[in-house]
Amino acid sequence: MTSDVTAACPLPIGQYTHVLMAHGGGGRLMQQLIDQVFISAFSNPRLDERHDGAILDAQGRRFAFTTDSYVVRPLFFPGGDIGTLAVNGTVNDLAMCGARPRWLSAGFILEEGLPIETLERIVASMRQAAATAGVEIVTGDTKVVEKGKGDSLFVNTAGLGTIDHSMPIGPRHARIGDAILLNGDLGRHGMAIQSVRDGLEFEGPIESDCAPLADIVMGLIEAGIAVHCLRDLTRGGLAAGLNEIAATARIQIDIDESAVPVSEPVRGACEILGFDPLYVANEGRMIAFVPESDADRALAIMRALPVGDGACRIGSVLSDSPGLVTLKSRIGARRILDLLSGEQLPRIC
Amino acid sequence: MTSDVTAACPLPIGQYTHVLMAHGGGGRLMQQLIDQVFISAFSNPRLDERHDGAILDAQGRRFAFTTDSYVVRPLFFPGGDIGTLAVNGTVNDLAMCGARPRWLSAGFILEEGLPIETLERIVASMRQAAATAGVEIVTGDTKVVEKGKGDSLFVNTAGLGTIDHSMPIGPRHARIGDAILLNGDLGRHGMAIQSVRDGLEFEGPIESDCAPLADIVMGLIEAGIAVHCLRDLTRGGLAAGLNEIAATARIQIDIDESAVPVSEPVRGACEILGFDPLYVANEGRMIAFVPESDADRALAIMRALPVGDGACRIGSVLSDSPGLVTLKSRIGARRILDLLSGEQLPRIC
Repeated sequence: MTSDVTAACPLPIGQYTHVLMAHGGGGRLMQQLIDQVFISAFSNPRLDERHDGAILDAQGRRFAFTTDSYVVRPLFFPGGDIGTLAVNGTVNDLAMCGARPRWLSAGFILEEGLPIETLERIVASMRQAAATAGVEIVTGDTKVVEKGKGDSLFVNTAGLGTIDHSMPIGPRHARIGDAILLNGDLGRHGMAIQSVRDGLEFEGPIESDCAPLADIVMGLIEAGIAVHCLRDLTRGGLAAGLNEIAATARIQIDIDESAVPVSEPVRGACEILGFDPLYVANEGRMIAFVPESDADRALAIMRALPVGDGACRIGSVLSDSPGLVTLKSRIGARRILDLLSGEQLPRIC
Repeated sequence: MTSDVTAACPLPIGQYTHVLMAHGGGGRLMQQLIDQVFISAFSNPRLDERHDGAILDAQGRRFAFTTDSYVVRPLFFPGGDIGTLAVNGTVNDLAMCGARPRWLSAGFILEEGLPIETLERIVASMRQAAATAGVEIVTGDTKVVEKGKGDSLFVNTAGLGTIDHSMPIGPRHARIGDAILLNGDLGRHGMAIQSVRDGLEFEGPIESDCAPLADIVMGLIEAGIAVHCLRDLTRGGLAAGLNEIAATARIQIDIDESAVPVSEPVRGACEILGFDPLYVANEGRMIAFVPESDADRALAIMRALPVGDGACRIGSVLSDSPGLVTLKSRIGARRILDLLSGEQLPRIC
């Protein structure tokens, strides 16, 4: 390996004087921006954990707190819309902290001229997604910007969840020997969006996998599985999730390519459009790092739920390392599964 | 009075098919949008309180949770920038719930091409404002949109605060006989922004009043003042804050115009530009509804703090009403201080 293959070796942000689309793409440039602008300014123990959210100790209890803004285009796509995404995305970030999602905020930035009917459809989706995920939208804000200064509608949701256990769950807790479990096939969200953008129709529309993941997490925790690390596979896909964990935990992760499920329509779309499904964003897919001894039981728990019925074991943590992800191909060769520098698919979430 | 003078009588949102700038202006149209699109869809007891944030009961403790997106233009203005505003605005919404502000999230929507140096200046302001207000920025998110699809930078902050007392504080708790206290002169934030936009220089620049208000609130609560309602005077200014409280609590509020402080530079700018300072946004001004018997002690507590050194009593709650705010002029005549339908100053926060 060369010295620039992992997320542990960022290039200086200083070589870019202006924000590029790639700074929002979930790859190495986004990591650099986060490290060198945000974390260096706001540094504190919670932010430094590089988790999907912050774990807070408040009044003797533990909570998870997280935020995401949603800028996806188009607003409506097969399997969901920006509203379902804004609820499920934040619900999932809380779940990845081992928390039970409870309350969301919703902040809207509306562009002058947006049809109110469009806003009402999105709000109805948020209401439905919140009911499905068992969370309440309890506070909000609305801003309007002039025509041409926004893009119809952006939504931010922040979320708060309660943590009723004492397990430390997070990227730095992944351990040598851990089995890595995935809850289903990859790439459906990204390919659903891109197919709409490109006006492609495959044998049928590819539907986004957008779904809440908290039931899986609560199921694992309540069954006493020693969950070490959880990550939902959004921007940058499986490759980005694994690389971030490998770099934070300073481990080598090895993935068996043949074990990673990708549906035929998604594989076909990726081939036509030139994408690698391991890098494509998902909105209802997660990986769990659990001890080898808990792996079979954890898989059974995941498979018992609709959102985990395609769960499988895709790899394991091999050894200490500055942070490395390897992929064992179908013919047995190993290659490095690196972070991309930018993004394949802008504005996917 | 006619039947359309208060916030209690909204026009149907149905007459507008598209979002107008006025839907974000803090006036009656924004109230209608919130009522008829958001609250009707997400209805729950916390949202229905119409507070600056939600009060949550979690694990036997009380918390406040709030969010605001910031779209102010220009990004930098005398007395602050979008970063100071994004921290203080959310800190103040938590304080208005009677909470001690503790943790913030920060979500950035960046426009492709934004100078990274601009982002770094804003992040440095947020860091400084957070340190001053005693809060930590613990989690965040970054999205990038194409050039022309945003407006350099939008920030969302959500905030979480702890409530260590059992006082019910909120719009519906304002009571007949309450004294209404204001912490200082009005209109500086709005006029600071508008002066820059119009390229006006008065005798000196008008500086925004942007400041954290939590010390005032904690001071009142710790001194045992029976605080009934708190409101910071952002979009729509004093008039909007009073009207919202009057409509929610179903009371008549009477304000003594001569008691409301407005600095000479702000009064002059308002006259030149055609604004009424009672409707101009502030970012470090609040009103407190307290029992008559606590009013003098509360004023002394406010005046002992730099952000409250101009504190004064501006009026009182007179009687039950469907929701009415009256203004007693310098010559003793009373007029209705109504909500505006739209906004005087777009993108003020």
